Amino acid sequence: MTKTRAFAALSPGQSVEPLDIDRRDLRADDVAIDILYCGICHTDLHMARNDWGHTTYPFVPGHEIVGKVAAIGSSVSKHKVGDMVAVGCMVDSCRVCAPCKSGEEHYCANQFTGTYGGHDRHDGTPTYGGYSESIVVSEDFVLRVPEGLDPERAGPVLCAGVTAWSALRHSGVGPNSRVAVAGLGGIGHMAVKLAAGLGAHVVVVTTSENKRADAMALGAADVLISTDEAAMGAAMGQFDVVIDTIPVQHDLSPYLMLTGLDGRVVVLGMIDMVPSFHSGIMMMGRRVLTASAIGSIAETQEVLDFCAEKGLNADCETIPVSQIETAFERMEKSDVKYRFVIDMATID
Amino acid sequence: MTKTRAFAALSPGQSVEPLDIDRRDLRADDVAIDILYCGICHTDLHMARNDWGHTTYPFVPGHEIVGKVAAIGSSVSKHKVGDMVAVGCMVDSCRVCAPCKSGEEHYCANQFTGTYGGHDRHDGTPTYGGYSESIVVSEDFVLRVPEGLDPERAGPVLCAGVTAWSALRHSGVGPNSRVAVAGLGGIGHMAVKLAAGLGAHVVVVTTSENKRADAMALGAADVLISTDEAAMGAAMGQFDVVIDTIPVQHDLSPYLMLTGLDGRVVVLGMIDMVPSFHSGIMMMGRRVLTASAIGSIAETQEVLDFCAEKGLNADCETIPVSQIETAFERMEKSDVKYRFVIDMATID
Repeated sequence: MTKTRAFAALSPGQSVEPLDIDRRDLRADDVAIDILYCGICHTDLHMARNDWGHTTYPFVPGHEIVGKVAAIGSSVSKHKVGDMVAVGCMVDSCRVCAPCKSGEEHYCANQFTGTYGGHDRHDGTPTYGGYSESIVVSEDFVLRVPEGLDPERAGPVLCAGVTAWSALRHSGVGPNSRVAVAGLGGIGHMAVKLAAGLGAHVVVVTTSENKRADAMALGAADVLISTDEAAMGAAMGQFDVVIDTIPVQHDLSPYLMLTGLDGRVVVLGMIDMVPSFHSGIMMMGRRVLTASAIGSIAETQEVLDFCAEKGLNADCETIPVSQIETAFERMEKSDVKYRFVIDMATID
Repeated sequence: MTKTRAFAALSPGQSVEPLDIDRRDLRADDVAIDILYCGICHTDLHMARNDWGHTTYPFVPGHEIVGKVAAIGSSVSKHKVGDMVAVGCMVDSCRVCAPCKSGEEHYCANQFTGTYGGHDRHDGTPTYGGYSESIVVSEDFVLRVPEGLDPERAGPVLCAGVTAWSALRHSGVGPNSRVAVAGLGGIGHMAVKLAAGLGAHVVVVTTSENKRADAMALGAADVLISTDEAAMGAAMGQFDVVIDTIPVQHDLSPYLMLTGLDGRVVVLGMIDMVPSFHSGIMMMGRRVLTASAIGSIAETQEVLDFCAEKGLNADCETIPVSQIETAFERMEKSDVKYRFVIDMATID
């Protein structure tokens, strides 16, 4: 075991504080990573605050991890010491169920091991996230950060990025697609960049005209104001896919109506009860409502490589570890464009 | 114009009564059909009773029509006098919108012309359905009844049948599919037959153990009792597709839960508000909720041909015209296996 400095929530009401935690000795398939940067996902905040009622403390957040390989286990072949690598939301899965066998470990029938808040499948110890100096992860769950992708801005690709990517890819988005992105936060801004990168015509749906310039800068062709009934009516049936990243409860009817025949609304943000809506909206146009969660390891590597190839990056604000709590508070007010990244060198 | 005897609702509160209506003189593309049989769809009843508030009277129901070609217009090439033909839910569409151009006229952007309750696109006259001696329909909306398909039992294929067929086909149902059919009425019984005909493993989900023998006779491999929580729990994730034909409002959560990764619930029966459900059910497994309405003309011909090829038929109870009102009342009590068909020869 190796002690590593981390930042942990010790109870729901308290701020995130320094805490020394143990990282296991390398198993044969393990990679030890010195963490350089870790993105702050809204899930980190929900979990630290025990918003979903299943957090165990101490709780070390962070699943948008970028760092350098410090050491490798005896059988590791995918990574070598000094490589720039990354870890996202998962550090293991059962590897034998049908989804795992088909490379969909994020839908592991026996539940993937979360980077934080989970338990190691071998020794049962709690998993601690990337708000720390180092982490030890099985090589199959370690991604390569390609040349040309800025390590400081790659972290959010691991969660926000792949969540948007997986939804876009499973919706068949490509050069002729008309994509609406509802909500412009961590996932939303990546959805705009990635959909535009895939060649789609992208329109941001937002409550605020103020976001027009930002949306266009991210790659949107236009902005649709969701409170403008005339504009929403005129846009009816105009989209193939709506990527709905709005993180609070909302009526899906207007978003379903934006799509045409066989249109899809993919819910990525609203982890909540879906308000009642009329089935006729789906029936008239064979519209599809679906949702998805993060993406597979293969998709995560794919989106990292795609970002490098296209020169895309998350828009980030880098903070020192001393600002984590301030960042949490600003996120609660949506005061971030579009993701905080912790510079782990500031942990000393 | 030609007078033809029909049965019409004259107001919401009254029974269906004999009424002479006009059928237009043949236009160049028209086919005149002497009607032999007409199925009774639940929509007929809803419309006759003005349940949806948009019925205009007199109202002649019937969109599961089978008959013989009596005469053809000057340019008709698809049908000839004496052919056994059929007419389903549509008699025309705009023919120029994108869905029409791509053979999806049931999703015509300018709304297809209903066999009843619509208005002719050329002369604006109301359309009257198949509870009548004859009908005049543009050849493109007239189907061929193939040899080997019993005309007396073919009617319900035109609405109930194609509704199930279209949902099964768009869900990619084939020999390796695991299909649950919820509800065992007109659409449900056809869904079981057709899915089994496509080679799928079919399980009927119903509230009543009493329906087991019937379900097995239709081609189901098993029955799942929806009120049996243990059985429903054990069946979680076991299906690729749920064809949900339950015609009343109900919670979709248990049906979504029956499906596995990328599973689909297709709502065909519940034309109503979808009760609130948690998005996590879709998110955990990328499950899809969708709905569809009838099917295209091409799909209608396809399912007629499939039924003939496989020796499938709707299960029908044939009644004389004098029994229409009794049939309506029995349908309201679900007292039919599984479709009434009116023998139009009894109109005299």
